[in-house]
Amino acid sequence: MPRTRLDLDRIRAARRTIDPVYLDTPMYRCDALGRRLGCTVSIKLETANPVRSFKARGTELVAGLLAEQGRTAVVCASAGNLGQALAWSGRRRGLGVTVVASVRAPAVKLDRIRALGAELDLVDGDFEMARERAARIARERGIRLLEDSLDIETCEGAATIGLELAGGESPFDAVLIALGGGALATGVGHVLKTLVPETEVICVQPAGAPALTRSWHERRVITTESAGTIADGVAGRFPIPEVLDDLLVVADDAVLVRESSIIDGMRLLLEHTGLVVEPSAALGVAAVLEDRDRFSGRHVVTVICGSNVDLDAHRRWVHP
Amino acid sequence: MPRTRLDLDRIRAARRTIDPVYLDTPMYRCDALGRRLGCTVSIKLETANPVRSFKARGTELVAGLLAEQGRTAVVCASAGNLGQALAWSGRRRGLGVTVVASVRAPAVKLDRIRALGAELDLVDGDFEMARERAARIARERGIRLLEDSLDIETCEGAATIGLELAGGESPFDAVLIALGGGALATGVGHVLKTLVPETEVICVQPAGAPALTRSWHERRVITTESAGTIADGVAGRFPIPEVLDDLLVVADDAVLVRESSIIDGMRLLLEHTGLVVEPSAALGVAAVLEDRDRFSGRHVVTVICGSNVDLDAHRRWVHP
Repeated sequence: MPRTRLDLDRIRAARRTIDPVYLDTPMYRCDALGRRLGCTVSIKLETANPVRSFKARGTELVAGLLAEQGRTAVVCASAGNLGQALAWSGRRRGLGVTVVASVRAPAVKLDRIRALGAELDLVDGDFEMARERAARIARERGIRLLEDSLDIETCEGAATIGLELAGGESPFDAVLIALGGGALATGVGHVLKTLVPETEVICVQPAGAPALTRSWHERRVITTESAGTIADGVAGRFPIPEVLDDLLVVADDAVLVRESSIIDGMRLLLEHTGLVVEPSAALGVAAVLEDRDRFSGRHVVTVICGSNVDLDAHRRWVHP
Repeated sequence: MPRTRLDLDRIRAARRTIDPVYLDTPMYRCDALGRRLGCTVSIKLETANPVRSFKARGTELVAGLLAEQGRTAVVCASAGNLGQALAWSGRRRGLGVTVVASVRAPAVKLDRIRALGAELDLVDGDFEMARERAARIARERGIRLLEDSLDIETCEGAATIGLELAGGESPFDAVLIALGGGALATGVGHVLKTLVPETEVICVQPAGAPALTRSWHERRVITTESAGTIADGVAGRFPIPEVLDDLLVVADDAVLVRESSIIDGMRLLLEHTGLVVEPSAALGVAAVLEDRDRFSGRHVVTVICGSNVDLDAHRRWVHP
C-alpha cells in the first residue's frame, strides 16, 4: 500500500458523490493506433462528458462538500479545464464560482467557463500568476480557494479513473498519464500501486514545461523561469511539494516529450481513433513515439484527459 | 406493449452476450450545441469503441449464437460499419467472416474491414447489389447470411441502446434516430415504446435516400431507382417489409433532411462537442436544424451512431 495523502476508501466513496455522467468512461483497444505504434494501445476516454475533461471528477467532490457545509462561493485558478468543471459542478449546487485564468488561455476554454455561468477573472500573465490572484481573491472574500493537485479532492476525484482502470477486464502493462499539477498522476498512480502494483505508472510532460518531471528525477522541487508548450493544460512552473512527495511514491517514471511529438500524437489520435483532443491528451502517444522500443509488444493505456482545443489551432497542427 | 418481432426479455438477455466494451455508452447533455439549436440536446455516443459504430451490439449477438451452434463462417453485405463489427465479433470467436461491400464505400471503412481480418468482396454497384451477392455467397458456401435489420439479432442488439436511454437519469421528450435499414430505429423504438411510451421516436433519413421514410408514410414498401447522399451508411433503396411493419408500430415520425443540413450538423457536432462523426450520425442534428420550432425548448436525444468517415472528406464538408 503506497503511503501518500490519498486514501483508497475515500476514493471508493467518492464515486457516490460524483455525477454518474463522469464515471465509468469508455476504455477500449485501438487496433489501428496500436499497429502504428508497435504495441497494444487502449484508450481511457475522459472527454465524452459535459465539460470534455476528467476534471469534473474532482470538482464534483469539492462542490459536493461545499454544498454540504453550506458554503456559497469558491474560487480557483485554472488553465481552463478545472474552471469549466468547477463552474459545472458549482452551478448545479447553487455555488458562486470564480475562475482566474491567464488571458493567454485558449479562447474556447475561457468562453466555455463564461457559458457555464462562472465569473471569469483574467490575469495578464501565466498560470502561476493566476494562482496568486486566486489566492488573493479567496483571502479578500473569505471564500474557499480550490487548489488543483494540492487539494486532496482533486487528486481523489482523478483517482476514481484508477479504480476503473484497475477494474477493467484485460490487464495492461503500463499507463501513460499527462503530468501537469500532478492530481491525475498521483490519483491514478495511488490506486494502481495499491490494486495492481505491477502496472508501470509513467508520467509524461512536455519538454517545454518540465518543472515537475525534473523535480521527480531530482527528488526535490525545481522551478523553471518560463514554460513554453502548446499543451496549455500542463504548463505549470512551480511544483507543489506535497504533490511531488506523493508522486515520488506512486510514479515509476516521468518523461519529457518534444512539441513535435505532441503534434504527431494529436494527428495519430485523429487519424486512427477519430478523436480531436487537446495537446495534453496526446502526451501519452507522444511518449510511445519517442521511445518505441520501451513499449514494443506491451499493452499500454493512455488517458485521453481533455478535448477543449481551439479547432483552428488543431487543424494547423495536424494538417500543417 | 408494441407488437413487433422484437422481445424485451430477449433484449435484456442480450446484454449478457454483448462484450461490455459496447455497452453503457456515454450519454450527456451538450449545452453549447443545445444553445445553438434552441433546445436541450443530449448525445448518446456510440463511437467510443473498437469499431466506432453501434453495429457491434448486433454482431456480438449473431457471432455469439453462431459460435454456440458450432458454425464457422458468416457472410454479410455492408455499407461499411456492419462489416467492421461482424469482423470484430467473428475474429474473437474464430469465425470466418466475409463482407460484401460496394467499391464506392468509403475507403476507410473498407480498409478497417480488411484490417480486422475479414475477407472483403467488392461489387461494382450499390448496397443493394452487395446484398444480392452476399446472398449468393451464402447459398454457394452453405454459410449463415447476416441480413442487417431483417435478422432479429441486429434489431435486438441495437435495442440495447434503448434500454440505456430508458434507464437514464433525466427524462427526455424525443429521440432522433438515423434511419437506414431500420435496425436501430425499430430496436430503440421498441424499447422506448414499451418502457417510456410518451417519448417521441423520430426517424431521420437523407432526402437523397428516402425509400424507407416514404414507405413509412405510405404504409407500404416503396423502392427508389437510385440513392444519392453523402450519408453512405443509410443509402438503401429496397426497404424490408418485416422491418417496415415494425417501424410502423414503434416510430412516431420519419423525416427527410437535405444534404446541406447533414453537413451543417457535422460542423455543429465538431464545433460544439469536438466529435468527428460520419454523415449518418449528424442526421438527428440536421432534423432539428430543419424544424427548430418543433423542438424548441424540448429535450432531444440524438444517437451518434458512427464515426467511420474519411477525414479529408470530413474536412472538405465542414470547412468548405
